[in-house]
Amino acid sequence: MSLSLETARERDRRDPLRVYRDRFVLPPGVVYLDGNSLGALPRATAERLRVVVGEEWGRDLIRSWNQNHWIDAPQRVGGKIAPLVGARPNEVIVADSTSVNLHKLIAAALRLRPDRRVVLSEPGNFPTDLYVVQGLAEAGRCELRLAEPEAFGEALDHEVAVVMLTHVHYKSGRMHDMARITAAAHAAGALVIWDLSHSVGAAPVDLGGCGADFAVGCGYKYLNGGPGAPAFLYVAERLHADARSPLTGWMGHAAGFDFRDDYEPAAGMARFLCGTPPILGLVALETGVDLIAEIGVDALARKSGELSEAFIAQVSGGRGAGELELVSPADPRTRGSHVSFRHPHAYAVCQALIAAGVIGDFRAPDILRFGFAPAYLGFEDVWRAADQLGRVLDQRLWALDEYSVRSAVT
Amino acid sequence: MSLSLETARERDRRDPLRVYRDRFVLPPGVVYLDGNSLGALPRATAERLRVVVGEEWGRDLIRSWNQNHWIDAPQRVGGKIAPLVGARPNEVIVADSTSVNLHKLIAAALRLRPDRRVVLSEPGNFPTDLYVVQGLAEAGRCELRLAEPEAFGEALDHEVAVVMLTHVHYKSGRMHDMARITAAAHAAGALVIWDLSHSVGAAPVDLGGCGADFAVGCGYKYLNGGPGAPAFLYVAERLHADARSPLTGWMGHAAGFDFRDDYEPAAGMARFLCGTPPILGLVALETGVDLIAEIGVDALARKSGELSEAFIAQVSGGRGAGELELVSPADPRTRGSHVSFRHPHAYAVCQALIAAGVIGDFRAPDILRFGFAPAYLGFEDVWRAADQLGRVLDQRLWALDEYSVRSAVT
Repeated sequence: MSLSLETARERDRRDPLRVYRDRFVLPPGVVYLDGNSLGALPRATAERLRVVVGEEWGRDLIRSWNQNHWIDAPQRVGGKIAPLVGARPNEVIVADSTSVNLHKLIAAALRLRPDRRVVLSEPGNFPTDLYVVQGLAEAGRCELRLAEPEAFGEALDHEVAVVMLTHVHYKSGRMHDMARITAAAHAAGALVIWDLSHSVGAAPVDLGGCGADFAVGCGYKYLNGGPGAPAFLYVAERLHADARSPLTGWMGHAAGFDFRDDYEPAAGMARFLCGTPPILGLVALETGVDLIAEIGVDALARKSGELSEAFIAQVSGGRGAGELELVSPADPRTRGSHVSFRHPHAYAVCQALIAAGVIGDFRAPDILRFGFAPAYLGFEDVWRAADQLGRVLDQRLWALDEYSVRSAVT
Repeated sequence: MSLSLETARERDRRDPLRVYRDRFVLPPGVVYLDGNSLGALPRATAERLRVVVGEEWGRDLIRSWNQNHWIDAPQRVGGKIAPLVGARPNEVIVADSTSVNLHKLIAAALRLRPDRRVVLSEPGNFPTDLYVVQGLAEAGRCELRLAEPEAFGEALDHEVAVVMLTHVHYKSGRMHDMARITAAAHAAGALVIWDLSHSVGAAPVDLGGCGADFAVGCGYKYLNGGPGAPAFLYVAERLHADARSPLTGWMGHAAGFDFRDDYEPAAGMARFLCGTPPILGLVALETGVDLIAEIGVDALARKSGELSEAFIAQVSGGRGAGELELVSPADPRTRGSHVSFRHPHAYAVCQALIAAGVIGDFRAPDILRFGFAPAYLGFEDVWRAADQLGRVLDQRLWALDEYSVRSAVT
């Protein structure tokens, strides 16, 4: 146990990102360690939505598509996300959901490798990523192959059209070596799709520097875009001329407002749009992205590492440590912004922690997951979370009902 | 010219739907005839969003998925849309955009008719509908055939897997005979997909009574769900067991939160979900749907017919009538809720009308389109719009700049 409440508070006082905590709404009495599932509400979002709803929709009505720049929102917000993931502004656009965007990019990649039909991923990848491939496989478009990335040597053969991996694993927090795997895929003649859902806004990402081909990511986690926020997708500029989306809607047309009968894909990323952009979700996402961009992705990634390191150290030296097995990599260079432990009663422990005001996450069958959103969490949060976890384990509070837990911890 | 300003006001006073006008935000001095493109803002929406953002997202955070019933929103809002289109609550779900939903349903229909590969539609259908088919055709999944619905007799042969039509045409307002065309398609062994974007909330629709197989529709027109609101889709219950979505994401899984590697489609409409539901868009849409459902679809369809009839009569008997050609069907039983005229300077006329406070729409190359959203428009709006249109034509205000138009009409 390396951190006292006092030293935790002292570290918070010295934290240059401390000022940003007040830019978020955080409910009193709660340590929120689930920002990797739903990011906290930026204070500016409610006001931004009030203006967009009341004035832009209510007063300006249909004119807002041009006058208030709704029509450009997918490109504009994408352009703001780009620097957070090492991309150029014209390589990222916001559209649809992560799952739908994965479908677009897998289909686009398969089309660019017509003589190959394998999509290579890993077992236990985030399920929707695998499900999207299975849907394409069932339609006869491809074949899904699963192998541990350490064993990709053999699995990455001349049949592989595209390697699809999640950069930071949703359960373990393990972060892949994006540069190494991308290079290996390219050496085997395959393309690569990275799912950045658990990375963007918290972990360092350099799509351009790694030579990545495609990527998708989520708007509602560390970008704080709100529940079900629209997602983003990235296509390296060198592929723009040839990559095609299978979801061919009017917003992806070269001249959508000419209302022609024949489809002609727009230049650049716009062809990856399909239907009408979801403006409420886009402006909420933009507010979150603006804030994350203001804080700066390097500072966020650094602090995220410090928080998770401190939590691991604190838990490992604390009460009940013997009952927990660290599932996440111990080396912070190969770990994202969340930390997971295995416990035989993980579900009950998670519920007891929630009753004690520490909101983490349970992932079946036996994983406790704690996300350290660096934009609004601090070292006192780490101390409190570790303290309550120790208490829940030491006093076996997880075996009690919610009311009894509340009585025991307060 | 059948309507004086006084008789128009008298008809408004007698209108049983008049009380609902105040449930919407309508900017002063504007006659808004583009609710078929973006519906007006219900007053309740801003407050609902304030609660969902400030309390449900900001305070309850991740717990809201269950506690505040976010996770059920696609089914719940779909169930409220169902009676507006003659469907059962379990036959409609809200998800994604109209274009993405069309992709899902065309692919599902093709899968149900494996020996056929033609999608039959009409030239000049709303472009995104045709583009979606073209994307599937380019991937080798089908072939697009276009024929005038009157000539479907020949075109509707044994190669046709699915007939896809928009119920109310976006440009002309012509309303198809859903029962007759559905029966003809079924007699030829084909399935039918109806696009209800310009119908739902304003025109009578009876999917169940017509025996329709599939439908999609838009949330941001007469349902007043806001810019880029999520769309809905309908699958007749008899097809639920066999229809499959090609977009296989975690929200469409039979047990999405078990996080299994293998996809298994959920029962019923849930399998047509893909990614995480867009909560802000869903609750805004729900507020609009609740209001439309409260007013009642029969009363709305009746009033919509009265408003468009009055407008046609007024314009036909008014100044400049000789310059206009009615493009919409004259028979209200075959017309939706908007009315279109052809004019050689339609774009300039539309701009002059906007400067004069009448917001209609221009559709290339020469169409003026006026939508009569029955929930918030009245006969005085009809009178004013026709009066200004007559003035713009009679005084050739369309040849002036915006400033001069404003001076001329005020």
